[in-house]
Amino acid sequence: MADDQVDDQVVVIVVGAGISGLSAAKLLKESGLKVLVLEARDRVGGRTYTVKDNNHGPVDVGGAYVGPTQNRVFRLAKEFGLQFYDVSEKEKTVLNVQGTWAKYIGTIPPFWNPIKLLDLNHVIRTIDRMAKEVPCDAPWKAKKADEWDSMTVKQFIDSIVWTRTVKELMRIFIASVMCVEIHEVSLLFALWYINSGGGITRLSSITNGTQEKKFYGGSQQLSEKMAAKLGPIVLLSKPVIRIEQDEDTVRVIDNQGSVYKCRYVISAVPQALLNKIQFEPPLPCQKLQLIQRIPMGSIIKTIMFYREPFWKKLDLCGSAVSDTGIVSYCIDDTKPDGSHPAIMGFILADKAREVIHMTKEERRQAVCEHYRNVFKSTKFLQPVGYVEHNWMSEEYSGGCYVSTMPPGAMTRYGRYLRDPFGMIRFAGTESATYRAGYMEGAIESGERAAREILFEIGKVSKHQIYQDEPESPDYPASSLETSMIEWLLPSVTRLIQFTMGVVLGLLGNEILGWLTGWRRGRFN
Amino acid sequence: MADDQVDDQVVVIVVGAGISGLSAAKLLKESGLKVLVLEARDRVGGRTYTVKDNNHGPVDVGGAYVGPTQNRVFRLAKEFGLQFYDVSEKEKTVLNVQGTWAKYIGTIPPFWNPIKLLDLNHVIRTIDRMAKEVPCDAPWKAKKADEWDSMTVKQFIDSIVWTRTVKELMRIFIASVMCVEIHEVSLLFALWYINSGGGITRLSSITNGTQEKKFYGGSQQLSEKMAAKLGPIVLLSKPVIRIEQDEDTVRVIDNQGSVYKCRYVISAVPQALLNKIQFEPPLPCQKLQLIQRIPMGSIIKTIMFYREPFWKKLDLCGSAVSDTGIVSYCIDDTKPDGSHPAIMGFILADKAREVIHMTKEERRQAVCEHYRNVFKSTKFLQPVGYVEHNWMSEEYSGGCYVSTMPPGAMTRYGRYLRDPFGMIRFAGTESATYRAGYMEGAIESGERAAREILFEIGKVSKHQIYQDEPESPDYPASSLETSMIEWLLPSVTRLIQFTMGVVLGLLGNEILGWLTGWRRGRFN
Repeated sequence: MADDQVDDQVVVIVVGAGISGLSAAKLLKESGLKVLVLEARDRVGGRTYTVKDNNHGPVDVGGAYVGPTQNRVFRLAKEFGLQFYDVSEKEKTVLNVQGTWAKYIGTIPPFWNPIKLLDLNHVIRTIDRMAKEVPCDAPWKAKKADEWDSMTVKQFIDSIVWTRTVKELMRIFIASVMCVEIHEVSLLFALWYINSGGGITRLSSITNGTQEKKFYGGSQQLSEKMAAKLGPIVLLSKPVIRIEQDEDTVRVIDNQGSVYKCRYVISAVPQALLNKIQFEPPLPCQKLQLIQRIPMGSIIKTIMFYREPFWKKLDLCGSAVSDTGIVSYCIDDTKPDGSHPAIMGFILADKAREVIHMTKEERRQAVCEHYRNVFKSTKFLQPVGYVEHNWMSEEYSGGCYVSTMPPGAMTRYGRYLRDPFGMIRFAGTESATYRAGYMEGAIESGERAAREILFEIGKVSKHQIYQDEPESPDYPASSLETSMIEWLLPSVTRLIQFTMGVVLGLLGNEILGWLTGWRRGRFN
Repeated sequence: MADDQVDDQVVVIVVGAGISGLSAAKLLKESGLKVLVLEARDRVGGRTYTVKDNNHGPVDVGGAYVGPTQNRVFRLAKEFGLQFYDVSEKEKTVLNVQGTWAKYIGTIPPFWNPIKLLDLNHVIRTIDRMAKEVPCDAPWKAKKADEWDSMTVKQFIDSIVWTRTVKELMRIFIASVMCVEIHEVSLLFALWYINSGGGITRLSSITNGTQEKKFYGGSQQLSEKMAAKLGPIVLLSKPVIRIEQDEDTVRVIDNQGSVYKCRYVISAVPQALLNKIQFEPPLPCQKLQLIQRIPMGSIIKTIMFYREPFWKKLDLCGSAVSDTGIVSYCIDDTKPDGSHPAIMGFILADKAREVIHMTKEERRQAVCEHYRNVFKSTKFLQPVGYVEHNWMSEEYSGGCYVSTMPPGAMTRYGRYLRDPFGMIRFAGTESATYRAGYMEGAIESGERAAREILFEIGKVSKHQIYQDEPESPDYPASSLETSMIEWLLPSVTRLIQFTMGVVLGLLGNEILGWLTGWRRGRFN
């Protein structure tokens, strides 16, 4: 192997030039350290990827949405002069679940049946309350960690939800935020993810929620700007295949046999793919077992372009939640200047796995037909363009948005996500303690990993490693406090208990009257 | 990269010299093909590994047990003149579950409480019956595949078992055959595994069961004999790190940069570790997602040596099933000539994860104390030797015995275990359709993969690829038909229903008598 790339001055090598790796490198460089970034792909950005298409303008085929509470994203964007625009939801959203079809404004679906509303309110309140009991930095320390980690989300939902409609809504929610089915994930993992993301309402909303904003020009710019600032120390098309550590040196080797020496390494590759790198000495057995238990989600992201945003005239904002058809959740994706009218649609979890075999043309057709059915307009059958990205086939992602955990993994292996290994520290959004799975979590974990090294070399103190981010003055979050009414509304179970109680009370009264009447000789 | 190892004559390269890879290579060579085997470790045998220790004789620290129905193992052993001996269970087995402590002979634990017996009988019968509905070659085609794959084994067990003792027994059973906890695996996966292994009784028994026999001299000999017969075409310490395919050539590259050309490749590495190999073109997305969803089990195998097999004098055979202490299941491991008295103990699933941090000496102590408690003799505190093997830390195994699947994986990704990829075929016991997870499955899958290639080059017909194995004349299996009594015994639910029925019947009769008495004027 050639030693041509050796540079004794490099203190830290960051493996992976997604948002997490670049955030780490940026902070280290700003702290005066000599850094090198090695990226396997021929581009930066990782799971954010903006296709520059002359026909459609910049199209985010990976992570795209940002909203209040993602303050690290806002801070970096501001530094680089990147702007955001609001996702359109002035008009109505369509709900198409279990045969119910309705148009509504806001977050709460318009059920005629009050039982469904009570059911939905109860499950959201219950899960949000449980999620708050799960520490973001150590979910295995939750009081009920063992119990919650020994069941799937489906098992829990089935145990507390009465109506099929609400079960379907929860299934779609989990698929939309994790790209897996409700039976694939541990309840503890889901609660942790939900808590780390600010609760169900924050995660599932557009306005004041996670899907509120998009970057003008696409989200990949965040990485491109960081890479540009870092300059020639970001090397593309350098898949790292081996990392050797001895007492004072780490040797990082790429697939061409080039060897890069350094003092510390930050791994910012998806940990589910860590086996792609040979470690010498090998990874500790806990890590070896962990990385077999954190599968990446399943998603194909689609964007369908139309000549006109005709749905606005139908009083539709372009959002739809559906339990039939190929797309579970879609959002208007028209550019902020009104150009390139489009609908973004997620093909998620089992749906994604079902349509892998189709040709792109077949999927395009299925997506159009879905929009025709869900928005009830044949105009959706005449698109002018279609862009899709299958993240399951990305060799260096393995899926999207993020790693998930089946039952048993979080309590037994979760703590090894961030456990240092010799001179190596681990970043990547799945290792974040705040908004894991999002761009925010990528930055949080990257900067934390960088500060772990700054601590090692005496540049920061231990308590500075984990840092909260002040709220962005430009994009403050509105409170999502549960309203008094939501708190007071009973669950279906309580309603039935109460009704039964009333009925039994009345009946008891009647029986008592009857008995006393009888005693008084009414029947004699 | 050096092209020094190129040999245009090689038709097939087998990656991995465990039992599966070597069986494949052996069959191919016998069919007249030029074969090369590349093994990452410095030894053959994979998950079978016999430590040759002067103090203790040959000690199997990996796969060791063989029993009736493993006819391929018997066939190969006979070919190489390898002999078996029977595992000792003349004396009594100890059961130590949920506070019950008992000694018994045979497979059925001696519960005083008939409810527990009914409960155990019912769960075994139910699971065995369901398992038979799961096709070994295509579990995703089971009629209830979707339902069974969307729940954990724990969820199912909790729904049909009444007593905590039986729940614990089932937990220990799953841990003993798969090295994971009952909440980690999909019910469908477990049913498939149980069916592929001949049912719960076959899997959990010594006599006439899976733990009946051991190899004189250790199980690794099977691989060593195959490797010796194959000769210098088996290359050790050659971790394959890259496989490139074009139209007519496959290039296999090891970690030293040596390039080996061939026409076909058989991958006989654990598929959970397939990311260790870079594929060009990359693996199809279904395979990329599959290999993130098949974690290897968690186990530390221990062997404790004593001066005398004093447990025999206590009328104990050395077997114990326990839900407390470090070892869930142990078996006598004394050599067949009576030398090196020993107890083999499995540290399984969560127990294995709990004791990773201990030193070897601490584990030795914990195992001794466990035997003292469970066998009720302080003599177990004076061992003369201790051998252990932590399979979780084996870089090229990732765990043992085999891959398992969490909910959702089998129905969505199971079919890709054996799906060919260009010129590559997949072997390894997790890809077997018969006795997956055992040595038998390793051979079955290796020979099947070899015949897939023999079919490609016209040496066998398509229907010959999958072949049943005739029963070994030397070690025929006795039937495990359920007895009439076992079939007739009711479940606890039925017993309660029946009892309730009788009680209600009697009560009804009484009430009727009372009412008619009243009508007849008894109260007037």
